[in-house]
Amino acid sequence: MKLLEQRILQEGQVRPGNVLKVDCFLNHQLDVALLDAIGEEFYRIFQKEGITKILTIEASGIAVACMTARHFHVPVVFAKKAKSKNIDGDVFTSTVHSYTYGRDYDITLSKKFLGPADKVLLVDDFLANGKAMQGLLDVCAQAGCHVGGIGICIEKGFQPGGQELRQAGYKLVSLAIIDSMSDNSLTFRQQEA
Amino acid sequence: MKLLEQRILQEGQVRPGNVLKVDCFLNHQLDVALLDAIGEEFYRIFQKEGITKILTIEASGIAVACMTARHFHVPVVFAKKAKSKNIDGDVFTSTVHSYTYGRDYDITLSKKFLGPADKVLLVDDFLANGKAMQGLLDVCAQAGCHVGGIGICIEKGFQPGGQELRQAGYKLVSLAIIDSMSDNSLTFRQQEA
Repeated sequence: MKLLEQRILQEGQVRPGNVLKVDCFLNHQLDVALLDAIGEEFYRIFQKEGITKILTIEASGIAVACMTARHFHVPVVFAKKAKSKNIDGDVFTSTVHSYTYGRDYDITLSKKFLGPADKVLLVDDFLANGKAMQGLLDVCAQAGCHVGGIGICIEKGFQPGGQELRQAGYKLVSLAIIDSMSDNSLTFRQQEA
Repeated sequence: MKLLEQRILQEGQVRPGNVLKVDCFLNHQLDVALLDAIGEEFYRIFQKEGITKILTIEASGIAVACMTARHFHVPVVFAKKAKSKNIDGDVFTSTVHSYTYGRDYDITLSKKFLGPADKVLLVDDFLANGKAMQGLLDVCAQAGCHVGGIGICIEKGFQPGGQELRQAGYKLVSLAIIDSMSDNSLTFRQQEA
């Protein structure tokens, strides 16, 4: 998606440890018009999959999911990262390792929001090692729901998450795939429009 | 806002400890069409305030903020609840007590996203004791930005947060204010349209 690649080139900042900061528009400050264009693009790609729910994980995934769900006219469900008093006992859980935060955490999703009748589109802002996405897929397996696709804004193509998910047979589309990055340059993977 | 009050009556569940579960549509599963109507209503109320940014706190506030920002055509900025490797040192911070999670936590916001030129609308899904909102107002004070208003989806009117903020002079609008609740009934405060 050219619009997203341009914003990454204009405003993204590469930091040590293969960190790409896009906090100006994607995961701290949010450009809602850009997110809406992203949601529209996910709709263009996945509209024939019979999607009944958009599934994501807090926090920044929620913005992507909402602006995507708007085009599909289906609800969002987001997995939570901490167990709140307000969540009942009847939940799906999975353990995820976060490289960003350097620790494991549990994700939680109420059983009443996902079941065998659902066909979900999983969305997130980033895909790198794919641990969060595998946690969401684990939740989907527990729920017995169908996975209609996975929509990612930015994939770090030099980390293994994307390849593993494609090899597992998922319809994974990342709107920008970064194949290499350094202080001075970013290389995007060429993709079909 | 009648639409929101109706949904609370239809789908909200009262639990011990004055917990109102609205996870079917507001903070776990998200009804994006309802959130969009909420955002439109906040725009109707605050459109003359010269708002430049919508400010909220992760996680469920992000959904409300995105669907509000869409109508204002301004960015969202959300305060984070945990310090990530990806946030630089130059941040505003404030400590918030969460009654839901039973502990204190720090909120963090990059200094580059909020400054004296900004006039912000603060939004969140719930207001009860108001601790999260006071944390956001503390961040606004540190940034030297102007507070154009506070928009809340559901206020627990029998807890002190709303009264304290109104007494402090903020233009606070809650689309549904619950004055009392029990297993069998919810009483909404009558408000001007």
